[in-house]
Amino acid sequence: MLTILISAYAEKIDMLIVKTFDVDFGGEEIVLNNVDAKELGLRTQDRIKITGRKGSTIAIINTTNTFVRPGQIGIFKRIMNELGLKDGNKVSISPVEKPESVEYIRKKLDGTKLTKEEIYSIINDTTKKNLSLIDLSAFVSALYVRGMDMDEVEHLTKAMAESGEIISFSETTYDKHSLGGVPGDKTSLLVVPIVASAGLMIPKTSSRAITDPAGTADRMEVFAPVSHSIKDIVKIVKKTNGCIVWGGAVDLAPADDALIQVEYPLSIDPRPLLLASVMSKKRAVTSNFVVIDIPIGKETKVPNYDSARRLAREFIDLGERLGMTVECAITYGAQPVGNAMGPALEALEALRTLKGKGPNSLIEKATSIAGILLEAGKVAGRDEGTDVAKKILKSGKALKKFREIIKAQGGNPNIKEKDIEKLIGEFQADIKASRDGYITRISNHAIAKIAKTAGAPHDKGAGIILHLKGGNPVKKGDTIFTIYAEKEYKLKNALALSRKYEPVKVEGMLLEEIPEHPFIERQ
Amino acid sequence: MLTILISAYAEKIDMLIVKTFDVDFGGEEIVLNNVDAKELGLRTQDRIKITGRKGSTIAIINTTNTFVRPGQIGIFKRIMNELGLKDGNKVSISPVEKPESVEYIRKKLDGTKLTKEEIYSIINDTTKKNLSLIDLSAFVSALYVRGMDMDEVEHLTKAMAESGEIISFSETTYDKHSLGGVPGDKTSLLVVPIVASAGLMIPKTSSRAITDPAGTADRMEVFAPVSHSIKDIVKIVKKTNGCIVWGGAVDLAPADDALIQVEYPLSIDPRPLLLASVMSKKRAVTSNFVVIDIPIGKETKVPNYDSARRLAREFIDLGERLGMTVECAITYGAQPVGNAMGPALEALEALRTLKGKGPNSLIEKATSIAGILLEAGKVAGRDEGTDVAKKILKSGKALKKFREIIKAQGGNPNIKEKDIEKLIGEFQADIKASRDGYITRISNHAIAKIAKTAGAPHDKGAGIILHLKGGNPVKKGDTIFTIYAEKEYKLKNALALSRKYEPVKVEGMLLEEIPEHPFIERQ
Repeated sequence: MLTILISAYAEKIDMLIVKTFDVDFGGEEIVLNNVDAKELGLRTQDRIKITGRKGSTIAIINTTNTFVRPGQIGIFKRIMNELGLKDGNKVSISPVEKPESVEYIRKKLDGTKLTKEEIYSIINDTTKKNLSLIDLSAFVSALYVRGMDMDEVEHLTKAMAESGEIISFSETTYDKHSLGGVPGDKTSLLVVPIVASAGLMIPKTSSRAITDPAGTADRMEVFAPVSHSIKDIVKIVKKTNGCIVWGGAVDLAPADDALIQVEYPLSIDPRPLLLASVMSKKRAVTSNFVVIDIPIGKETKVPNYDSARRLAREFIDLGERLGMTVECAITYGAQPVGNAMGPALEALEALRTLKGKGPNSLIEKATSIAGILLEAGKVAGRDEGTDVAKKILKSGKALKKFREIIKAQGGNPNIKEKDIEKLIGEFQADIKASRDGYITRISNHAIAKIAKTAGAPHDKGAGIILHLKGGNPVKKGDTIFTIYAEKEYKLKNALALSRKYEPVKVEGMLLEEIPEHPFIERQ
Repeated sequence: MLTILISAYAEKIDMLIVKTFDVDFGGEEIVLNNVDAKELGLRTQDRIKITGRKGSTIAIINTTNTFVRPGQIGIFKRIMNELGLKDGNKVSISPVEKPESVEYIRKKLDGTKLTKEEIYSIINDTTKKNLSLIDLSAFVSALYVRGMDMDEVEHLTKAMAESGEIISFSETTYDKHSLGGVPGDKTSLLVVPIVASAGLMIPKTSSRAITDPAGTADRMEVFAPVSHSIKDIVKIVKKTNGCIVWGGAVDLAPADDALIQVEYPLSIDPRPLLLASVMSKKRAVTSNFVVIDIPIGKETKVPNYDSARRLAREFIDLGERLGMTVECAITYGAQPVGNAMGPALEALEALRTLKGKGPNSLIEKATSIAGILLEAGKVAGRDEGTDVAKKILKSGKALKKFREIIKAQGGNPNIKEKDIEKLIGEFQADIKASRDGYITRISNHAIAKIAKTAGAPHDKGAGIILHLKGGNPVKKGDTIFTIYAEKEYKLKNALALSRKYEPVKVEGMLLEEIPEHPFIERQ
């Protein structure tokens, strides 16, 4: 085997003086001067073991003519800390072989089924940053082309979950997850308090936005801090039955995050990783019952109903293998949920909905998903979950529970609409209809892009309010949507983009009946 | 299409102060402080356009907390020069969309045949460094799994050739190329002078070693400089009919080099890239007739005779499409060619062979390949090429021609064996047989690895002399090979490795007849 023989030169071969190298991306690279690299017979992307005072670690080589001088070594800050190094200290380095997991990645490229041990080896090296971006990209590509069977997906999911921390609760826990891709989907902000107020435990960890104007963690942050330790999360959940925290603050399935870093620039989302990504996070918080929301329709992640059903079956199957009960909800996702996009605007809409003043599409979606959980937890009878959820929402119990959760997470439990209104960006622009007609289509991608360009989610007060949605009749001059920004240049840029794209289509005749509220089908 | 909408925020959005960022690898990354990246809604691996005084260019983002401060931007030295920037200058940046070629890479991952335009787009973006290592790894992986048909390979080869400089000659030119993987193969150092002295034009560009103890350019460098401009190469060839220069010194098919950077760490060599890599370099020097040497046997790149024949057919087919006549020689490559490995040791062996004192395996291989070219050039009759080549070698004409080429390339034409002997590393160790028997196998990989660890090719005097080869009987205590090093610690490391691996296998009975000189089959 060629690769076994590559770079096994010797024991320690040199002492180099340390210089901190601090960029965020690129695996665990260290930087050597070209003179030293050539002298040592090393090439870019070869691996070395660095030994400092507090032990040793593996890193991948990058080379330079000037960034470090001969005799110097540039080392990532994280490794500096790990090895207890300071600028000017000395380390010794020795070449090491490629990890075996590179072989297993090639095996998957060859279309071979991987064993449990091989999958754990790849995930372990991913977490430890022993694999380069080149390796990870080849792995993601291999999974995209070759796929994995359910045995492999099961091992992948378990390996990812075990790559980080595990949170466990003494009671049965309920959870929900959306595959995403639909802007303005603040459903979790309603589902968690509805379900928690019915006496079920729902510890929700969520993500920040990558391509959306807001993620659940970004929205919740308007109400309360979302970065908590595992110990604090357990405390919050014991006190209130629920939480809405940022998963990124705890080390849940970190291998998944490393792979997402590669999927994002390639814009590919291989099925095995989609399944393992969702379910490893659920396994890491030891969920017992999970509803997976699979939005379908134009510009969502799942192209059509048949794909959604197939995917639902796979989630359910994988759940069984993990000892988790999974139910899937196929939902209408071809336009935003509710009217607001952007952290503060969505927080405001969620608060209003909890107070009984929300848009139908949001109420329907949230109570349907909450209903499934209520039925699973036997606090609602069969087919009565949605009604029970609606009653809880209407009664104000969910709002009360939400305020308890806010308090437990360290926010202001008495937050009022006007407190959030103050956060909303002062720079605003209305986009008006240029003709009479019907709104026949809203582009999820375009509207999300415009909201992001206005500053969301970084600028909490930036975003969009959609005054009219698919199916609505419009008259020339009606305001279709309003853009909000905290900074004038971002408003200008967002406006330029609204002119470039056609985020909302107005046509003379309504060609397709667009549902006023989302259809939900349980799988 | 999701990707079309990603990062099309605006026109110019900020002015940042420039700081040079100088590492060799990683595409054309720039470094932004996390504060600025978040403010601008940018993520690692997004692309921006940087505009400086002398124009603008595209780069990929990396982020940092400390390496550059907010308001600063770290820029690659190459881009600094291109845009006429100095540390402390200001630039403006604006987000740009992913290049379309990322879509085409995904198309290939999906198994779709790529059009000429799509292939040119990928290669063009590879050359311009618009594609990240993640993108290139996905492309190499896609080619590995999905392959390409000959139409695609033809476009790929042409696109790669056109990605750099083109050298052309007024006369018909002859060339040879080995797929490599066999240590000690200094055939080109004999073939070029034999063919040139017969009146045929053979402008040989060659590479430096990646995984071998020496490449042709490394060997030739012992005699004369190998880095020459295109103008000088043309001059040298006009004067002497031949040259042996380093292709890396001229910008021949640079896209190929960029892709090799990714193939190397993955240890994969997809068939379409193997074909295009060889043939794009030949097209870039407008070769008319080429012999491709395909070594087969254990630990070579081509596993067996059938694969070699298939590959030969593809090279011939591709040659026809490019208007180039290709002949393939399938050669025995399961042990080193000749006895010497390492630049100076191989140079010495080549010089001795030109003087009539060389090992049979080297003489047979070189004269067979030279013979094919002599027949093609009609300076030898059919099936008489090898004999004519041997006569030329024996007559001293090839040596005379070699000295002319050395002189034309700026070396010392009167170089003597003892001049080269002086270069050979003073630290030496003999590896002796531990029992009586026959040498049944020599591991190409292990022997190459040991020679590299001894310092080759960086230390010109480092390497190995194999005193005995496959099939030879040995007595306990006989020296099987000697390791040479310029530095004591490298000799120690190489010795440690010889003990770890079993580079030469001695067994009680000769199980397999190992040919004394390589078999060559013409295709």
